[in-house]
Amino acid sequence: MHADPRQKPLHAEQTAFPIVDGMLHVGGMPLDRLALRVGATPFYVYDRALLRARVAHLRAHLPAELALHYSIKANPMPALVQAMAQLVDGFDVASGGELATALDTPMPVQHISFTGPGKSLAELRRALAAGVMLHVESEREAEAVAALAQELGVRPGVTLRINPPFELKSSGMRMGGGAKPFGVDAEAAPALLRWLAGQGVQVAGLQIFCGSQSLDAQAIMAAQSSSFELALQLAGEAGLSLRVLNIGGGFGIPYFPGERALEIAPIGAHLAQWLPRLRALHPQLRVVMEMGRYLVGEAGLYVSRVIDRKQSRGEVFLVVDGGLHHHLAASGNFGQVIRKNYPVTIVPQQPQRSGGGTTERVSVVGPLCTPLDVLAAQMLLPAAAVGDLVVVFQSGAYGLSASPTAFLGHPAPAEVLV
Amino acid sequence: MHADPRQKPLHAEQTAFPIVDGMLHVGGMPLDRLALRVGATPFYVYDRALLRARVAHLRAHLPAELALHYSIKANPMPALVQAMAQLVDGFDVASGGELATALDTPMPVQHISFTGPGKSLAELRRALAAGVMLHVESEREAEAVAALAQELGVRPGVTLRINPPFELKSSGMRMGGGAKPFGVDAEAAPALLRWLAGQGVQVAGLQIFCGSQSLDAQAIMAAQSSSFELALQLAGEAGLSLRVLNIGGGFGIPYFPGERALEIAPIGAHLAQWLPRLRALHPQLRVVMEMGRYLVGEAGLYVSRVIDRKQSRGEVFLVVDGGLHHHLAASGNFGQVIRKNYPVTIVPQQPQRSGGGTTERVSVVGPLCTPLDVLAAQMLLPAAAVGDLVVVFQSGAYGLSASPTAFLGHPAPAEVLV
Repeated sequence: MHADPRQKPLHAEQTAFPIVDGMLHVGGMPLDRLALRVGATPFYVYDRALLRARVAHLRAHLPAELALHYSIKANPMPALVQAMAQLVDGFDVASGGELATALDTPMPVQHISFTGPGKSLAELRRALAAGVMLHVESEREAEAVAALAQELGVRPGVTLRINPPFELKSSGMRMGGGAKPFGVDAEAAPALLRWLAGQGVQVAGLQIFCGSQSLDAQAIMAAQSSSFELALQLAGEAGLSLRVLNIGGGFGIPYFPGERALEIAPIGAHLAQWLPRLRALHPQLRVVMEMGRYLVGEAGLYVSRVIDRKQSRGEVFLVVDGGLHHHLAASGNFGQVIRKNYPVTIVPQQPQRSGGGTTERVSVVGPLCTPLDVLAAQMLLPAAAVGDLVVVFQSGAYGLSASPTAFLGHPAPAEVLV
Repeated sequence: MHADPRQKPLHAEQTAFPIVDGMLHVGGMPLDRLALRVGATPFYVYDRALLRARVAHLRAHLPAELALHYSIKANPMPALVQAMAQLVDGFDVASGGELATALDTPMPVQHISFTGPGKSLAELRRALAAGVMLHVESEREAEAVAALAQELGVRPGVTLRINPPFELKSSGMRMGGGAKPFGVDAEAAPALLRWLAGQGVQVAGLQIFCGSQSLDAQAIMAAQSSSFELALQLAGEAGLSLRVLNIGGGFGIPYFPGERALEIAPIGAHLAQWLPRLRALHPQLRVVMEMGRYLVGEAGLYVSRVIDRKQSRGEVFLVVDGGLHHHLAASGNFGQVIRKNYPVTIVPQQPQRSGGGTTERVSVVGPLCTPLDVLAAQMLLPAAAVGDLVVVFQSGAYGLSASPTAFLGHPAPAEVLV
């Protein structure tokens, strides 16, 4: 195979869901059969075996003593969170609602952490009562936690979230470097850590996030080194023995043409060099990586059905029964500056019909009365007819829960874990 | 007053909500008192008197025989839709869910129209059973309607939605011109109109949309002239006597710095010239303008409360208890290419404290763990403290219902009509 330089970049090949006799399978089940089981399109489906495989892949490459946490915000479906509780070492929650979901699982409370720049007093109270680990994000929050600890007569475990002076380069979302609403500026952290330690609070350590959705292993390793160095420096300045160091995640998945899967092995080797060095200085240290998208994003599909096929001035539109109200990110309206297509395919209602392998350039649009409701723009796809299923890959994270489901008053889609 | 050419463009002045003794009033009530009545922040509030005033403003400038319809998709809050039923001449719905909301009002069914490029068979059946006016969007939908009419033994009223060969220039959302998923290409319409007329369906007329959110009266008048000419041409070719001609809306409201309110008077004068000419050829004609955002957008506020105030590397962040999960559009993540600030102000918890008129440049961010959760970026606002209210103006349309309320598991905000 030689690359044609004129060729446009392609989506990374989707191989996680096998095609058997022309039919896509999810969780060992043909997709058309699954659609019957669900009872209606559109729906989201998440594949339990792929969740397991992803965690196993990480465990195979990352040091055994590294703790893996799941960030529930990526996909808060309760059944999926229950499944993740069997697979990972901890959870991160970002609201009282997510806290309730996490507390309904067998996950030990000390391995549930609560992050977020705007926790309400009611949320802080619930978190302290539950006994989870609080990531403190500001001086005011530190004061509130100290006051609540006294009021409730508890000695909460806290980590301080640090706004580092560096960022994860080439990441989809930068969350460190410069002025940020997240955490406490690194330069202000030692004083606050010392203050907290005098307030009847167990200061367990630090949380340092510097970005997410990176596909660049070198950039992630550089950010991890910077995070470890910063943690050692701040712990030294504050006289703190680290028991928890949460370095976030940052691992991305390939969504768009030209993007390729992140290589985990070098990151694992790099962490394996760092961990003994950290443990030598902080013998009780638990290093935590917290991931959302990387754990669940590739295990999910969004499935809708073609309800109309129309031509307009030479272009073909497939109108489907799902759209941006269920999958805002795939419509390009969630943090993307330039809209790009997610990987999408057609699953014919009658697989035997798909002979010939004809493809055509089409746009897949939803039922909403807005030009924003596009799931695929001018994409080369297998020829489709009314009744066929349209599958959006890479839909396991920031899909349904990040979408305006009430927009235009259509029913919410089903979500299933198979 | 002379304009300083170096000065940045400003937001249009917000004068609809009076400030009495330093306190913003909504529906005659001080906002701090209203917040107590609602019981919790954040919330949306819509002002009934402003809805009335907006419709009165239109009636004063537009020809009396023009029918004004409200597009429920702009804001489907049931109490607001009930209020609009008393003010406007009809509704447009875009789903079975919105149909149900409309049918619960006293609006006569024949003045409820159902638009949308992907209506399901179940929705078509409900619409035919209800007796509302169907805007047919494709050949396939025309066939489905004809079949259902026979199956149910009804003679539904339909209009054909036309994809015009022109567009509304300088509009926020273009919905006509070129290849589009909306409606039937104008060039294919006469044949389909003739076919429909032979199918036991009452072909009442046409719907021609060519854009929305325009602040340019000249562009709107040009699009209206083009729509009228196209309607006359298509009706002539199809041998159709028009009883309904829905020309959409397109009227915008000023959101961003430098934008100014649309002038209605010239549009009214222009319509007053056209309507007699249309009526001379089609004596039974009802010309409908359908609007969503223009009717309700300026009557609504989104109100949240400052729960933290923090400095990071020289910048001030106000962390509020609301954010993009309630107001995606204000966060810049709904159809905007470049994020711009909505008009925002601070309402101090203690109005007497607001002496001095100090302002400061701040960013208002929500409680979500994502850098996308921004309600105002680097905006010059009255100095704010924890407990103060942050008000986002121009929030009556495409606010709550267009937002991912489940994102990160925070509670949904209240909505009130006062």
